[in-house]
Amino acid sequence: MNENKKIKVGIIGATGFAGVELVRILAAHPAVEIAALGSVSFEGKAISEVYPSLLNICDKPCVDTEELIESSDLIFAGVAHGMSQEFAAACRAGGKLFVDLGADFRLEDEEEYKQWYGGSFLDADLHGEAVYGLPELFREDIRGKKLVANPGCYPTGAALALYPALKAGLVEKEGIIIDAKSGVTGAGRSPSQTTHFPLCNEAFAPYKIGAHRHTPEIEQTLSHAAGEEIFISFVPHLLPVNRGILTTAYTKLMPGVKFSDVFDFYADFYKDEKFVRLKAPGQTANIRDIKYSNFCDISLHEDKRTGRLIIVSAIDNMVKGAAGQAVQNMNIILDLPEDTGLNIIPPAF
Amino acid sequence: MNENKKIKVGIIGATGFAGVELVRILAAHPAVEIAALGSVSFEGKAISEVYPSLLNICDKPCVDTEELIESSDLIFAGVAHGMSQEFAAACRAGGKLFVDLGADFRLEDEEEYKQWYGGSFLDADLHGEAVYGLPELFREDIRGKKLVANPGCYPTGAALALYPALKAGLVEKEGIIIDAKSGVTGAGRSPSQTTHFPLCNEAFAPYKIGAHRHTPEIEQTLSHAAGEEIFISFVPHLLPVNRGILTTAYTKLMPGVKFSDVFDFYADFYKDEKFVRLKAPGQTANIRDIKYSNFCDISLHEDKRTGRLIIVSAIDNMVKGAAGQAVQNMNIILDLPEDTGLNIIPPAF
Amino acid sequence: MNENKKIKVGIIGATGFAGVELVRILAAHPAVEIAALGSVSFEGKAISEVYPSLLNICDKPCVDTEELIESSDLIFAGVAHGMSQEFAAACRAGGKLFVDLGADFRLEDEEEYKQWYGGSFLDADLHGEAVYGLPELFREDIRGKKLVANPGCYPTGAALALYPALKAGLVEKEGIIIDAKSGVTGAGRSPSQTTHFPLCNEAFAPYKIGAHRHTPEIEQTLSHAAGEEIFISFVPHLLPVNRGILTTAYTKLMPGVKFSDVFDFYADFYKDEKFVRLKAPGQTANIRDIKYSNFCDISLHEDKRTGRLIIVSAIDNMVKGAAGQAVQNMNIILDLPEDTGLNIIPPAF
Amino acid sequence: MNENKKIKVGIIGATGFAGVELVRILAAHPAVEIAALGSVSFEGKAISEVYPSLLNICDKPCVDTEELIESSDLIFAGVAHGMSQEFAAACRAGGKLFVDLGADFRLEDEEEYKQWYGGSFLDADLHGEAVYGLPELFREDIRGKKLVANPGCYPTGAALALYPALKAGLVEKEGIIIDAKSGVTGAGRSPSQTTHFPLCNEAFAPYKIGAHRHTPEIEQTLSHAAGEEIFISFVPHLLPVNRGILTTAYTKLMPGVKFSDVFDFYADFYKDEKFVRLKAPGQTANIRDIKYSNFCDISLHEDKRTGRLIIVSAIDNMVKGAAGQAVQNMNIILDLPEDTGLNIIPPAF
Repeated sequence: MNENKKIKVGIIGATGFAGVELVRILAAHPAVEIAALGSVSFEGKAISEVYPSLLNICDKPCVDTEELIESSDLIFAGVAHGMSQEFAAACRAGGKLFVDLGADFRLEDEEEYKQWYGGSFLDADLHGEAVYGLPELFREDIRGKKLVANPGCYPTGAALALYPALKAGLVEKEGIIIDAKSGVTGAGRSPSQTTHFPLCNEAFAPYKIGAHRHTPEIEQTLSHAAGEEIFISFVPHLLPVNRGILTTAYTKLMPGVKFSDVFDFYADFYKDEKFVRLKAPGQTANIRDIKYSNFCDISLHEDKRTGRLIIVSAIDNMVKGAAGQAVQNMNIILDLPEDTGLNIIPPAF
Repeated sequence: MNENKKIKVGIIGATGFAGVELVRILAAHPAVEIAALGSVSFEGKAISEVYPSLLNICDKPCVDTEELIESSDLIFAGVAHGMSQEFAAACRAGGKLFVDLGADFRLEDEEEYKQWYGGSFLDADLHGEAVYGLPELFREDIRGKKLVANPGCYPTGAALALYPALKAGLVEKEGIIIDAKSGVTGAGRSPSQTTHFPLCNEAFAPYKIGAHRHTPEIEQTLSHAAGEEIFISFVPHLLPVNRGILTTAYTKLMPGVKFSDVFDFYADFYKDEKFVRLKAPGQTANIRDIKYSNFCDISLHEDKRTGRLIIVSAIDNMVKGAAGQAVQNMNIILDLPEDTGLNIIPPAF
Repeated sequence: MNENKKIKVGIIGATGFAGVELVRILAAHPAVEIAALGSVSFEGKAISEVYPSLLNICDKPCVDTEELIESSDLIFAGVAHGMSQEFAAACRAGGKLFVDLGADFRLEDEEEYKQWYGGSFLDADLHGEAVYGLPELFREDIRGKKLVANPGCYPTGAALALYPALKAGLVEKEGIIIDAKSGVTGAGRSPSQTTHFPLCNEAFAPYKIGAHRHTPEIEQTLSHAAGEEIFISFVPHLLPVNRGILTTAYTKLMPGVKFSDVFDFYADFYKDEKFVRLKAPGQTANIRDIKYSNFCDISLHEDKRTGRLIIVSAIDNMVKGAAGQAVQNMNIILDLPEDTGLNIIPPAF
Repeated sequence: MNENKKIKVGIIGATGFAGVELVRILAAHPAVEIAALGSVSFEGKAISEVYPSLLNICDKPCVDTEELIESSDLIFAGVAHGMSQEFAAACRAGGKLFVDLGADFRLEDEEEYKQWYGGSFLDADLHGEAVYGLPELFREDIRGKKLVANPGCYPTGAALALYPALKAGLVEKEGIIIDAKSGVTGAGRSPSQTTHFPLCNEAFAPYKIGAHRHTPEIEQTLSHAAGEEIFISFVPHLLPVNRGILTTAYTKLMPGVKFSDVFDFYADFYKDEKFVRLKAPGQTANIRDIKYSNFCDISLHEDKRTGRLIIVSAIDNMVKGAAGQAVQNMNIILDLPEDTGLNIIPPAF
């Protein structure tokens, strides 16, 4: 491949956790080159000074956003919600592609955005051009788009677990419960009491019970699946590991639906999906087995005594739940093979 | 106190995890003395050779069961299910008190025991004399008994969380889900692939979904609360920490019941219970805050969007979930103040 | 015991890690009552709001220092170096006892203090009245004193390991190397990048190589042992566990000294010390076995091929390395049995 | 590249920890194909059943050794010492290349092998043909060889840290101390009390003090560097993390040698080495920054007060300390670019 032909990518928020994970993946991606890294806190400093793991691999200094957009063909942004809308507008103005790892373009309904995030849609047209980038579910919608809203980490694990069952009407639409557990990288780079090692290690608790901002995003996707409005109970927990989200989703089988039907439907639904691995009956998804990779492992379980279908999914919150999926979306809008640069084999330990 | 007047206690299975935790608690208990330790695997070896933490604190050698029962007034047994029934019979024959940390006497219904554990009740009378030792719920039944079935770890956390709500009819009796997460000590002393550090650390998964043996025990207690048969979905997960069980229980509020009513009822229900700490609204139970202690922290949460009451409880699986509760039961049947030897303050980290 | 006769103690810096550990120990101490807790950051807030582990155990609100000193007979201070000198002066003025967990009174030589800490001795007399509170080595000096400098965590582990060998001339005075590894609580309560869970977990590195402020304190004690000035190489490492310091000390046996002589000397030196446990030959000290307790486990090892004596010690940095030793010093100056309130049995896991 | 032209590799001991790590690396290696996996314990079972991380990536069943050798051009063996000699002989007989990850061919001196491992050299000629495969130090010796002894994990970290200093005569040859800390994968796949999560987590201790089998291997390499026999004190510790070895090596600077000279020498010595990253002065090597990669990070530190040079190295014990270095050796003897398949970027967390 001609080095000059490589797509130039820039990362706004490169020193955040999603940002540096993008660097890890993109530095090994054969079709792109990292043209610019942006950071407000570390402008002028090399990324490898902030993350010594990158020494000799990517020693680029961080630049400001304007310079970054100018020197890139495609821009990723891993920043707090509310900040991406203006970056997206600037990218559109400059004819650049934009993949947003934040929350600004994930919700279709401005009222919901206002309610859960407290902000407004600055430009309704811009939101109209955005696509929700969960490739396994909405691949055809993503192709050809210039602005992709990369899903949240919890919503990715929950949607891949539940979408097929709701789509096919295999489970009841009411009463779904999503009990999710996330590794600490989900809290981002800023240290706090919650993530202070002695208070986080050997600890475990739920947080933001029934009030986490990913709730409407999960409901939006599941409502698309069900064809009607779905409400869920969503309880996230902070897990003392670096990476991984395990989602335990509780549903009720529709009368007459057999577990084997469900298994067969899932097997068929995901049969061509490289990044979804359906576990054989009797096996259980574990965050251990997908870490550092773009895989989502899913296992299906029947609780015969109560007629429940329990679905377990495991993703790496920083890869399939953030940077990996962002690169997958990039590959789609660049018309590259979808797994380019994403064939990371999860280590056994 | 006169040393000669101390109650002599023996521990069958002293080198198991529940056993050594009993040693930790009983060695500091002012009203008893450890008369004998039993171990099949380590007979003749000092307990402090097996657990160097006990060096100079308890260096007693392990003896056989017969000798142990003979030299003790009260016997604890921390052994696999199926083994306690004969020990209990021997204790009854010798006029000894018996606190069983195993599963043999927990289930009232022999059919359930057969179904879940595969064994029979060897002596129906003996089972008739046994009491289920969850003091906060069944204290009066325990007093004066000579044979106590100490509850399982998961059932303790689940029952303390859900019993009041069901007892008072505050929540629906159907559709209860218990998503529980246990530290690795719950797997006991025998090493395995599952508990091998490199495969257990940075890992997380559910196990025995809908099939864990603690399921009927939880249902038995909740059925007593509800006054009718209760079925639950119970999913345990293995948490990469040493100690602690966090239980996230999902219920539906009965029509017309307000969250504040629930909170007030729980506050009243547990107002005299030293070992149950109800968290203030807005606070969340965390296994960090109870570890090494006999506390059960409980927090109540409303998910207004779905009408759910979500109850979270945190116990140390080895203390309130095993050895601590066993000592609490001992105190009751010995007519000692219930917290004797159990005022262990949980460390902040 | 008459409640009115209990000694009133106050803790300056109660919401720091050493402070809250003092609360854990003192709340169970039979001869004292916690009269006041001081905190600049949390004045007016209950300690149990900051550390929920203390709920229902100690719910005292934090007060300012002046009020604290007034209402206490004995004051502990767990604050950054440079702050204790004025507190100590105020205590002396008020006739109060003072146990300083900071560094202000540990070094005898003001020049060293200036060099390593950058401050001065504000009152030379006050420093003259202070005693270095390592009871196993300097017990007689501590008795009757009113101002105790509680040793640093690393210096405690290092001194207990090396003092006897140097005192008896069993090892060479030159070339001693101390390679120490500390749990993350040693970094205190303030979160930082270094202690941020995802960057601290699954990580391990030395820090402040040859430049840690505990170096002169270790040398001071070892010089007293040797009767001449000792210089050491000291390298601390940050260990991804909550608690514990393991010290691996490398010395060279003096010509003609046999390992068995060393073992016998240590056994005799520590034979009456309740809190020092010398491991049998072939056994190895491990931080696992002393955590949450005031023990210092020591094991001795010969490297015959190189003529080295390698000494390993394990302490809980927050107990024997801070709060526990402070209480031990308190017991001495209050003329109480030295182990009062300190018989905490380390858990096996 | 023509798939048919790919080198066929086989892995004896594929279900061991080094074996499965070889699978992770080789499955992504562009110039080889995994022809066969060998396992005694899991013959007939797919590797992905043993390690679910490999699902859909490598689902090959395990075969016996004979079949494995026959179907491969190059064979790796990750088995206990004493077992490789016959495999090596079989490979030579069949004209196959052999890379041994065990200890059988590492020591040049049969007497040392007998003393530390208790076995004999079965075929002196075979040992004569073997080369010690530490590429950064002995690259030219490795080229063209058919039998490579892949170094031990501790010896790799120690040799890369110390070799240059000894080679250049910058440090004294006597009195070198190597204090090393290894993640738990170093203990291999078989669970034991030592690696049982509740006894290994929140624990830390040295083991085999002065008696670890890697001692003579380290000394062999350092003696080559120094040109005379070197004796070291080597103390390994078990670190509660999955991966990584941190080596803290203590040396004494030769009179007149300045720290800057040492730094410059190391910078020059390793200037063309892709897998060795010398940290800038003031920076410190950390196992966090190299995990999952083939890097060895090295930092140099002066302890001016004692005239010591302290060298810190960090490797992933399973990659540069085992499987990665084995592939690096394979690349050399296959005359491929040395980093082929080894450009794994270490994640930041």
